[in-house]
Amino acid sequence: MSLKIGLLGLGTVGAGTVKVLRENTDDITSRAGRPIEIVRAAVRDPALPRDCDLSGIELDSDADALVADPRIDVVVELMGGIGRARELVLAALANGKSVVTANKALIAEHGKEIFECAQAHGQVVAFEAAVAGGIPIIKALREGLVGNRIDQIAGIINGTTNFILSRMEADGADFAEVLAEAQAKGYAEADPTFDVEGIDAGHKLAILATLAFDIPLATDQLHTIGVGKVSAEDISFARELGYRIKHLAVARRSEAGVELRVEPTLVPKNAFVAKVDGVMNGVSISGNAVGTAGFYGPGAGALATASAVVADIVDVALGHAIAPPAMAQEVSFVPQSAVVSAHYLRMRVTDQSGVMKTISGILAGLDISIEAMVQKESSEGQAEVVLITHEVSTGAITQAMDELAACDAVHGGIVQMRLEHLSE
Amino acid sequence: MSLKIGLLGLGTVGAGTVKVLRENTDDITSRAGRPIEIVRAAVRDPALPRDCDLSGIELDSDADALVADPRIDVVVELMGGIGRARELVLAALANGKSVVTANKALIAEHGKEIFECAQAHGQVVAFEAAVAGGIPIIKALREGLVGNRIDQIAGIINGTTNFILSRMEADGADFAEVLAEAQAKGYAEADPTFDVEGIDAGHKLAILATLAFDIPLATDQLHTIGVGKVSAEDISFARELGYRIKHLAVARRSEAGVELRVEPTLVPKNAFVAKVDGVMNGVSISGNAVGTAGFYGPGAGALATASAVVADIVDVALGHAIAPPAMAQEVSFVPQSAVVSAHYLRMRVTDQSGVMKTISGILAGLDISIEAMVQKESSEGQAEVVLITHEVSTGAITQAMDELAACDAVHGGIVQMRLEHLSE
Ligand SMILES: NC(=O)c1ccc[n+]([C@@H]2O[C@H](COP(=O)([O-])OP(=O)(O)OC[C@H]3O[C@@H](n4cnc5c(N)ncnc54)[C@H](OP(=O)(O)O)[C@@H]3O)[C@@H](O)[C@H]2O)c1
Ligand SMILES: NC(=O)c1ccc[n+]([C@@H]2O[C@H](COP(=O)([O-])OP(=O)(O)OC[C@H]3O[C@@H](n4cnc5c(N)ncnc54)[C@H](OP(=O)(O)O)[C@@H]3O)[C@@H](O)[C@H]2O)c1
Repeated sequence: MSLKIGLLGLGTVGAGTVKVLRENTDDITSRAGRPIEIVRAAVRDPALPRDCDLSGIELDSDADALVADPRIDVVVELMGGIGRARELVLAALANGKSVVTANKALIAEHGKEIFECAQAHGQVVAFEAAVAGGIPIIKALREGLVGNRIDQIAGIINGTTNFILSRMEADGADFAEVLAEAQAKGYAEADPTFDVEGIDAGHKLAILATLAFDIPLATDQLHTIGVGKVSAEDISFARELGYRIKHLAVARRSEAGVELRVEPTLVPKNAFVAKVDGVMNGVSISGNAVGTAGFYGPGAGALATASAVVADIVDVALGHAIAPPAMAQEVSFVPQSAVVSAHYLRMRVTDQSGVMKTISGILAGLDISIEAMVQKESSEGQAEVVLITHEVSTGAITQAMDELAACDAVHGGIVQMRLEHLSE
Repeated sequence: MSLKIGLLGLGTVGAGTVKVLRENTDDITSRAGRPIEIVRAAVRDPALPRDCDLSGIELDSDADALVADPRIDVVVELMGGIGRARELVLAALANGKSVVTANKALIAEHGKEIFECAQAHGQVVAFEAAVAGGIPIIKALREGLVGNRIDQIAGIINGTTNFILSRMEADGADFAEVLAEAQAKGYAEADPTFDVEGIDAGHKLAILATLAFDIPLATDQLHTIGVGKVSAEDISFARELGYRIKHLAVARRSEAGVELRVEPTLVPKNAFVAKVDGVMNGVSISGNAVGTAGFYGPGAGALATASAVVADIVDVALGHAIAPPAMAQEVSFVPQSAVVSAHYLRMRVTDQSGVMKTISGILAGLDISIEAMVQKESSEGQAEVVLITHEVSTGAITQAMDELAACDAVHGGIVQMRLEHLSE
């Protein structure tokens, strides 16, 4: 009668899940309609101390035996990685067990195989915790907004880079400085590449896009630019013009095709995602019925992530888990050069009359119209020119940058970032 | 094989629901696993023009026949009111039909009877659209955050009063002026009492509290104060101190009991709900696993509300709708005088030395400590004193106001508002 759980991993999220299930047992049992019982767990080293009460849980390092254990109804994969995790999840499904996982890398990279395996064996794979931690964003997308044709998702789905940008903005500090602080605080890994380069956010975005648009998982179509590109200077210029810079993940579907990108992006200061600060995550979803709805909360952490894991477990207990996505839609992706948006450009120029005219002339020649332009005096007879364009293709902006860079009056590299006019 | 719908009402939300089901038919059919078909609708006057395509829908004014029609699986009640709507919903359930409704007044006032009737007949009643329009807040509370013990809900769940306060803040305008504008724009009813006095928000809050705390619907325990109490002056003082004033709905559960209140309330300017502007709604939910999560979006409107109605219909189609709440918890409510929070006080005093000392003395005598206090010169030898207290019971603050009002140096009434230190 009880739903029997086997847990792969007792690290941050695994131990958090045990804690939440123990702390809120009565409520969870009544909401799930039956007791949820962790019968067994597998870890690398069973001798290590664990951050939770293990009474009643059989613990060893035999993950293969766990996924084959006939007592177990649901395998909850909280070990991470995509090698062993993949094998074990596929084995669990083949053995007739449902799977709950928090592993975004696994779903993003091997989702197709895993969903097909689940379908073949009549099982479900639930992965609410894989995107935006404690925020029930997957449920919102697949169920709460099920009546919508989703056109766009714009989100801050990596707490590390958002912490870094928020701190850079608050303190005028530089990227490297703040990254070191984030590492010291445990908000960033010793090797921060996954977060800083947008790979982690890209995984999550690919998952959201699959659910929103019913398309295949397209990690190979992700366009990512790291947050290291952002300087304190750009943050301050953006602010002056009424924008904030966020490491924004955008999935968009239009007649031109699908776009998936994670880039430092200017957003209007009143946009929902502009107000998401620090390690928090926030996602806004636009659909043709709801307009735009926003979802906010902790994107990581032991208990917050466990909250999502437990929600999935309860859905399985009630028989309410949604079937694996079919990924059925034909999809074409918009080539990078054809992606259309507004842009932010910053360049250092000789501080003399006529330069602004030259710049405007180059842009006008490419049919790029300017929404705002400011010039700031700088040192050594030079000035800083910052401008915001109206919507234009990336191809055109790239050409404009080439032509601008070739001008005698323009010195050094041109900083360019995308700008999204998101709604509040 | 198709799920057959009977629609009570083809007004704003009814016509919106028809539109959304028609516009997104293919997606909805595939997500619901079967076609959803509106076979019949009832309105007051079938001769009126309707804001949707009625082809294939039998339309008349015989609501009683609709809820008895053996072809119909789900009755979608979008007529409003609590008299006829109650009768029809109960009849539909008794006839073995599920019910989807957007009617917060009906659920808040007659939820107990309706849920018991549903339970008795093995049917479900789904009411996502009744709270916060297009935001899937009920699903978040009952499913996405099911693993949590919920401790607090703090929300802006009436767009009209939020529009009024946002406009007052932006323009320094007065309540009456902005109310007239809201009425002209269609954001406020000709008789705005329901919105302005917090009755509508109270209905929604009672529903959320029932789901969050598993307690009976307690409209008789609601403490509501209208938004008309707020002046442009208070908004500006609050802002200076780092707060914004919102018509905030709060449901809290602590060892002392449950509190349900809708009042003009100061919130820190960085709090999630402080950033909810205009007609938008926003709700933050605090639970012992997730911490705090926030939900944002349009609280009304034809298509946005229809988005929630359709989500409920799809849940019914999939057999995923959650059973009616049991409302099983023993509950005691915190008496108003014992409710504890920080407070904002504003009073006009004689502008002379010693007055601040008198005020602090009175507060200290009641063990009320002061977090911030500012004095502004005013006209005619008087000054405006604004102060923010630390947490204190409403009883103590009431006594303090009596004692302050009795001072010779204090002139006229004392403005008092609650202040909630909500998290970001
Ligand atoms: N941390 C977060 O806030 C967060 C948020 C969202 C999603 N996630 C995802 O949740 C998953 C788990 O993250 P975490 O932070 O909890 O990781 P973690 O703290 O490193 O814990 C991993 C656990 O898995 C066990 N494990 C690893 N390899 C194993 C193997 N081959 N066989 C058996 N057990 C193995 C480890 O055992 P030992 O303890 O014996 O080494 C450890 O208990 C990852 O997919 C991550 O992306 C994490
Ligand atoms: N409007 C929103 O944005 C919104 C948002 C959230 C929730 N809601 C809730 O949704 C419900 C409907 O609101 P609404 O704005 O759509 O109302 P509405 O525009 O006034 O429409 C009401 C509809 O119900 C019909 N009706 C009323 N009494 C009837 C009766 N006795 N028998 C048969 N039909 C009857 C009306 O018929 P006639 O057209 O022939 O008069 C009309 O079509 C209410 O409970 C409201 O609180 C509304």
